[in-house]
Amino acid sequence: MNNWKNNLRNIEPYVPGEQSKEKNIVKLNANENPYPPSPMAVKAIKEYCADSLRFYPPADATPLKQAIASFYGVNVENVFVGNGSDDVIALAFQSFFNGSEPILFPDITYSFYPVWCRLFNIDYETPAVDDNFRIVLDDYKKSNGGIVIPNPNAPTSICENIDFVDDLLSFNSDSVVIIDEAYVDFGGVSCVELVKKYENLLVTGTFSKSRSLAGLRIGFAIGSKALISVLEAVKNSYNSYTVDSLSVAAGVASINDREYFNSTVSKIINTRNYMTNQLRAMGFEVLDSSTNFVFASNKNIDIKDMFEYLKSKKVFIRYFDLPRINNYVRITVGTDREVQILLDEIKKYVGD
Amino acid sequence: MNNWKNNLRNIEPYVPGEQSKEKNIVKLNANENPYPPSPMAVKAIKEYCADSLRFYPPADATPLKQAIASFYGVNVENVFVGNGSDDVIALAFQSFFNGSEPILFPDITYSFYPVWCRLFNIDYETPAVDDNFRIVLDDYKKSNGGIVIPNPNAPTSICENIDFVDDLLSFNSDSVVIIDEAYVDFGGVSCVELVKKYENLLVTGTFSKSRSLAGLRIGFAIGSKALISVLEAVKNSYNSYTVDSLSVAAGVASINDREYFNSTVSKIINTRNYMTNQLRAMGFEVLDSSTNFVFASNKNIDIKDMFEYLKSKKVFIRYFDLPRINNYVRITVGTDREVQILLDEIKKYVGD
Repeated sequence: MNNWKNNLRNIEPYVPGEQSKEKNIVKLNANENPYPPSPMAVKAIKEYCADSLRFYPPADATPLKQAIASFYGVNVENVFVGNGSDDVIALAFQSFFNGSEPILFPDITYSFYPVWCRLFNIDYETPAVDDNFRIVLDDYKKSNGGIVIPNPNAPTSICENIDFVDDLLSFNSDSVVIIDEAYVDFGGVSCVELVKKYENLLVTGTFSKSRSLAGLRIGFAIGSKALISVLEAVKNSYNSYTVDSLSVAAGVASINDREYFNSTVSKIINTRNYMTNQLRAMGFEVLDSSTNFVFASNKNIDIKDMFEYLKSKKVFIRYFDLPRINNYVRITVGTDREVQILLDEIKKYVGD
Repeated sequence: MNNWKNNLRNIEPYVPGEQSKEKNIVKLNANENPYPPSPMAVKAIKEYCADSLRFYPPADATPLKQAIASFYGVNVENVFVGNGSDDVIALAFQSFFNGSEPILFPDITYSFYPVWCRLFNIDYETPAVDDNFRIVLDDYKKSNGGIVIPNPNAPTSICENIDFVDDLLSFNSDSVVIIDEAYVDFGGVSCVELVKKYENLLVTGTFSKSRSLAGLRIGFAIGSKALISVLEAVKNSYNSYTVDSLSVAAGVASINDREYFNSTVSKIINTRNYMTNQLRAMGFEVLDSSTNFVFASNKNIDIKDMFEYLKSKKVFIRYFDLPRINNYVRITVGTDREVQILLDEIKKYVGD
């Protein structure tokens, strides 16, 4: 009896940021966008003929792929879309990292990477970022089964330039390199153009951050036809329709509204710069951010205690109880008003 | 150079039914519902505050789980939801079938099952259904690594009764049994009540068929807390948010509108009965269907040729060029009008 329990998968899952059900909180803990999605995306949803939801979504989500291809100046065959960039990157791990050597990613980075390695039984090594949280390029110039670099990195907020990626690829012609650009629109430089130069480069992105569509789950990847076709085959061995019809419609409208995109991204960058200056003026060390969040520390205070204090004041930020970064907090850039509330509360806390 | 190509996953994907881009077709090839979703679901989408799509979906899609739990008379901890039932069943394969013995499913069944086995390296055996396309219970009374039975089965349309499932489970206490009830609402009897009796039973369902929401990708599973918690852990090791915010909202509204659900299901059953009688009157063998499609053959005609003829007349049905069933077609039950067009075309073809 109950032998079936021996065959159950035993695994430690990823734990996402806290989703409080409280109202009237200042929510700066999940790197969500403080501004609504493009009015064009909202309109696409309202005007979608919901009666036709009885049909399966468009095969291969083609309209969305076309819109992304057009935005990035690549061909449709170079674009893959999925149910959020987590879905896309997970499929990429499963599709590309089947060698015997360990894959490499930084010790301080997106905490889902080791979870996917455990899920797919992929060996991995985590070269340490330096004391300034910079990725050490030389650590990735050795034999490996694949490389994953988030650029900008999270939660550090630091972006490496395109020459860094070019150098990385020029050494690593024997393994697939994934550059995870979830945050690139907030001040980083995309390396999508290098996809034409390197057939083994996959660049991933998301509509959850700069496009304010976290609730719709849209992620994408851009790469050579060789890589994209493998992603498609693995995806189609799992679930034929991962992006639903409303997400396709809203995603197309969102990416076509360049003006709104540029204006909200600019606002976030301005608020981030203000927030960074104010925090530094209060004695915080704040890393130079190319993202919609800042990573900050303060030698003079117990940062975890500050995190708990802010929570009690209904200001939610993120604290990671992890080696090397347990004296830092990650704070999402909100609206000017939200950031002012945050800064006022921190001022009170620091002043105590 | 290019050694990375050796580590790419090489796999033969599932091929979904043809999605024609032609307008004015009679689309009876994908088992979609001919009626729109519940007006309550449509209203939930139109009235959803799309501005809040900037937030991630509700953690664990809790409102949707609650609505499903309430409909089926189980607890929330007994419900799992995913991005269509393909996502749910794929996760179940990955979560439960990690033993050394082969899993069992019928030789004639949903063609995604062997694809998932290849994806997750699961051994499988396919006991033959009998000459009347009935599943032979005794074939499943042997040592195995798991069992998957679609009930009603597809593409045969035949439903086994609840005693069949009870008998199956009473023998198989050592492996997880999945009953895939994608089509059960059209005349089958759900075995959800057996979940309270058997901790190793998982029942899966979908909003794509009887709830007309194929475009939104909502699937679910009902089972013991032991099984559901493993599904959650594996899901959360892959993608934290698989069901998007609009799908949660529309799904809740859909399942709460029992009246609309009952009325559209009744209409489809009536049309199916009419269609079955008419086809039989024209000399077709039509299996007794408990689904929203019929499985039909005709000794006097070349069925593949009829399938091609109908396609040329813009009437799309499904033909499988597979052993044992290559003289059958699967025809989705449409509206009365669509079915009349189909029958008129078949009459012309048979009369030729």
